[in-house]
Amino acid sequence: MSPTPTSSPAGPRRIVVVGGVAGGMSAAARARRLDESASIVVLEQSAHVSFANCGLPYHLSGEIAQRDALLLHTPASLHAALALDVRTGSRVTAIDRAARTVTVATADGEYALAYDALLLAPGAVAVRPPIDGLDHPAVHTLRTVPDLDALTARVADLPADGPRRAVVVGAGFIGLEAVEALVARGLDVELVELADHVLPPLDAELAPFLADELHAHGVGLHLGVSAREIAGDDESAVVTLSDGTRLPAEVVVVNVGVRPASDLARDAGLELGARGAIRVDADQRTSDPHVWAVGDAVEVTLAVTGEAGAVPLAGPANRQGRRAADAMLGRRTTPQAPVLGTAIVRVLGLTAAVTGASQAALARAGIEHEVVRIHAAHHAGYFPGAQQVHVVASFAPDGRLLGAQAVGRDGVDKRIDVLATALRAGMTADDLAELELAYAPPYGSAKDPVNMLGFVAQNVLDGTMPQWHAADLDDVLATSLVLDVRSQGEFDQGHLVGALHVPHTELRGRLDEVRAAAGGRPVAVHCASGVRSHIATRVLLQAGLDARNLSGGWISLTATRPDLPLEGATS
Amino acid sequence: MSPTPTSSPAGPRRIVVVGGVAGGMSAAARARRLDESASIVVLEQSAHVSFANCGLPYHLSGEIAQRDALLLHTPASLHAALALDVRTGSRVTAIDRAARTVTVATADGEYALAYDALLLAPGAVAVRPPIDGLDHPAVHTLRTVPDLDALTARVADLPADGPRRAVVVGAGFIGLEAVEALVARGLDVELVELADHVLPPLDAELAPFLADELHAHGVGLHLGVSAREIAGDDESAVVTLSDGTRLPAEVVVVNVGVRPASDLARDAGLELGARGAIRVDADQRTSDPHVWAVGDAVEVTLAVTGEAGAVPLAGPANRQGRRAADAMLGRRTTPQAPVLGTAIVRVLGLTAAVTGASQAALARAGIEHEVVRIHAAHHAGYFPGAQQVHVVASFAPDGRLLGAQAVGRDGVDKRIDVLATALRAGMTADDLAELELAYAPPYGSAKDPVNMLGFVAQNVLDGTMPQWHAADLDDVLATSLVLDVRSQGEFDQGHLVGALHVPHTELRGRLDEVRAAAGGRPVAVHCASGVRSHIATRVLLQAGLDARNLSGGWISLTATRPDLPLEGATS
Repeated sequence: MSPTPTSSPAGPRRIVVVGGVAGGMSAAARARRLDESASIVVLEQSAHVSFANCGLPYHLSGEIAQRDALLLHTPASLHAALALDVRTGSRVTAIDRAARTVTVATADGEYALAYDALLLAPGAVAVRPPIDGLDHPAVHTLRTVPDLDALTARVADLPADGPRRAVVVGAGFIGLEAVEALVARGLDVELVELADHVLPPLDAELAPFLADELHAHGVGLHLGVSAREIAGDDESAVVTLSDGTRLPAEVVVVNVGVRPASDLARDAGLELGARGAIRVDADQRTSDPHVWAVGDAVEVTLAVTGEAGAVPLAGPANRQGRRAADAMLGRRTTPQAPVLGTAIVRVLGLTAAVTGASQAALARAGIEHEVVRIHAAHHAGYFPGAQQVHVVASFAPDGRLLGAQAVGRDGVDKRIDVLATALRAGMTADDLAELELAYAPPYGSAKDPVNMLGFVAQNVLDGTMPQWHAADLDDVLATSLVLDVRSQGEFDQGHLVGALHVPHTELRGRLDEVRAAAGGRPVAVHCASGVRSHIATRVLLQAGLDARNLSGGWISLTATRPDLPLEGATS
Repeated sequence: MSPTPTSSPAGPRRIVVVGGVAGGMSAAARARRLDESASIVVLEQSAHVSFANCGLPYHLSGEIAQRDALLLHTPASLHAALALDVRTGSRVTAIDRAARTVTVATADGEYALAYDALLLAPGAVAVRPPIDGLDHPAVHTLRTVPDLDALTARVADLPADGPRRAVVVGAGFIGLEAVEALVARGLDVELVELADHVLPPLDAELAPFLADELHAHGVGLHLGVSAREIAGDDESAVVTLSDGTRLPAEVVVVNVGVRPASDLARDAGLELGARGAIRVDADQRTSDPHVWAVGDAVEVTLAVTGEAGAVPLAGPANRQGRRAADAMLGRRTTPQAPVLGTAIVRVLGLTAAVTGASQAALARAGIEHEVVRIHAAHHAGYFPGAQQVHVVASFAPDGRLLGAQAVGRDGVDKRIDVLATALRAGMTADDLAELELAYAPPYGSAKDPVNMLGFVAQNVLDGTMPQWHAADLDDVLATSLVLDVRSQGEFDQGHLVGALHVPHTELRGRLDEVRAAAGGRPVAVHCASGVRSHIATRVLLQAGLDARNLSGGWISLTATRPDLPLEGATS
């Protein structure tokens, strides 16, 4: 292959890319499509480029049967299609910014490689938690193809008739995917998480849905504790937790998070930012005008809160790579916008997804907001297979959407993608209410859950529907009359201690009774999901009572408060 | 039930709603939640209110097993929950605007009913096409519960051992849903459509995917023809088409569209607009300040083209109802935005969906645009079950999205909903490229099809990738060298007459050959979907050749041109 002369304006003649997965490879491919004449060298320290990082857990589970399916490209295929010079087993150990060279270490020794433009896409490295015995042969992680190979082999070697036990340390995205995969492989899994709920980026109130799903598949949860020690013989380890629990396991998977792989950049004197991530401008350029950086290793600004952080996600990495290529070749770029951190995970039969700021992040940043909750069918309720989507969203007082999270069996990805788009556009509750989404019974509802979210937020923000929250329960019990407007059957299944029960259909005829029971106190109304109690709250408000509706109803209440003071059957 | 005194400001004391389905019932329910003290009467001419109009085909098919599931509310349930006075079998025959009364005809006679605020939600009426013999007992339509009952009975009464043949006239949304339902009931179905393709709101180039799916399920298509006559005995009809074809059928379903049910409004002297629809302002108010109107009967402004029209869709109707209630009660409203016309239909195993302006609508309106096509996996290609989503979108020269359409087996609804949201927000190709959508392998790709659409549009709009279209084929064949860069195997399956074949991976080494074959002519490049040919086009452009990439590749070409001049095996 001899590069063809190009008529493009003089770009860098020698482009060197460090890291051959998502962001690095996107940059290299884009650079080649824009410039046939440049020399483009991709240096990858591992044996694999352009592999499907996010697909690893699904080969462990067996769902992706062929390991080769994860290897999307090879150096040979990238050379044939894109005339890229891809060098695996090539670790960059130093950057000489003055000389514009990198030092490349290979199995055969070191060499210097000159660049006009250097792109750093080194990714992230797994955080090594302070656990004694991490070198035990049962211990694995799940970030690379060799990680996958070793873990798959460990599982495959388990004797069919012996114990098949796993401990997964870390209940983040990859940890949960590992749990799912190990359950699929028939292991008994215990999950250990330092935070008080699984999937820490999710607000605590949605995590119980995931916890229930994990329990239903036999997974044991150990929350608010850490692993302290891993010991035992080669076949079986024993993981000792901070609360003293000892968990025997043939397989231990540790994924407690990552940190930006910025050592090379730091050693070269490039400016670093939050969490040690490489600082870049909106065109991905580092503090050195000849060096760009993308992916898990770079600092980004988080949307909504404006916090600086690092976001180890494939989507932003790919787009940053494209942007860096455009920038280094002098093309118009689309500057990096603040990152929403949209993310999703499948946990057995459930899906959980987030976009924008969580309630916790808003609280940390001191950003005023109203929280709105709905539990709505993912498609027409009368159409077979309707599943509830649980959506929690935060809005600014002026109506702007600030963040959303959802959990459910179906339709979660669609709603979060719509909300991520709305968030990027700066949409408000009014805008969500008016979105025109595609409706036919198999797909949605005439009032889609996203529209419903807008309606509820409008009502909350303009004072039509004052609400109370599950987190206010103790206060409410001390100060208010709880009015349960569910049906008799629902009430009999279990209800709050001291609640007055008036089905919403009887409320207009029993207002005197409610007024007497309230005795001047506020009335805290609830039903199952917040719909019937909305009607009831409106009736009470117009009758002159100080009424509020429980946001998200009984469903959110029971998810938030496992220790509810109940009467009645509670099965 | 005695309405409770309210503290709300003096709204209309007597609200009358004409029409008790989507828009009318949304208005009535919202009005009650806002105002406990008003008298709210809902007049519905049929026996059913608040029924699931869009669900009718799915009970015909048997997918919704229980007919009662379609009847979401009854007058009794609406009275209990919302203190609404719902009167079925009550047809409004006249409006006396001066006296502010309506005349209500019932089985027991007529009466006048006074209003302070009148809401018209009369819906649409089926267009009765000029077909002789529409009163044949085999002939049905599918808009109301009685329609459904009659059609379901007709199908149920077919002898199991006799012929079970249906002709469906009209291949719009409901027509296609009827076809699907009748196929599910084991009928042999022939579909007749006056337009040259099924689902006329869809641009012609996507319709072949639906036609193939229909054919695969044994449905016969008769396009560009109309039904002229329906004759035959009571058991079996014979439908004669405009081309002379005679189709015997035990069941004939006619759904050739609707028109606004605006006779009542017209007779009352209310201003009408396009297609005879009731003219309203952004608050749904008609030309009479005491009368509001919503739903299929009202005129709306279509987004993008600015055309006036009527859009018989449930989503806008519901939101208009809510808006009308807010307006008549003096509340802040969210004014009606131009309507995108987002719509979706399931056709057997496929989904088709549209939002914004079609190519045909843009051409009619004379709006300059670029069309972009992608065929992308609905989730990670390496994850089992990936299905192609075929997306066609139009962009203004400044990058603004103008409309999008998609067909596929999975993931279509999500992409159209994201694009509908983007369209509402006025997003551009740059914005689509940068959208942060939820990615994990079961749900999408790191570069989602929506991102890809943005990337391709950016490349087209900024001149990075000049393209040609399937519609240009004759011109291209006359003036250009066709360069097929697919693999040998694909090429051998069939290719354009006279095409030069150079796999994209060999192109850089065979540029002289291409240059010689072109002999100064432009080079029209294509592959299967447009991805490999994009790389090839970039190589050629930088080598100084006048190259263009076929938008949507072979997939769009064969969908658009069934009569391709081919060589090679064409099975």
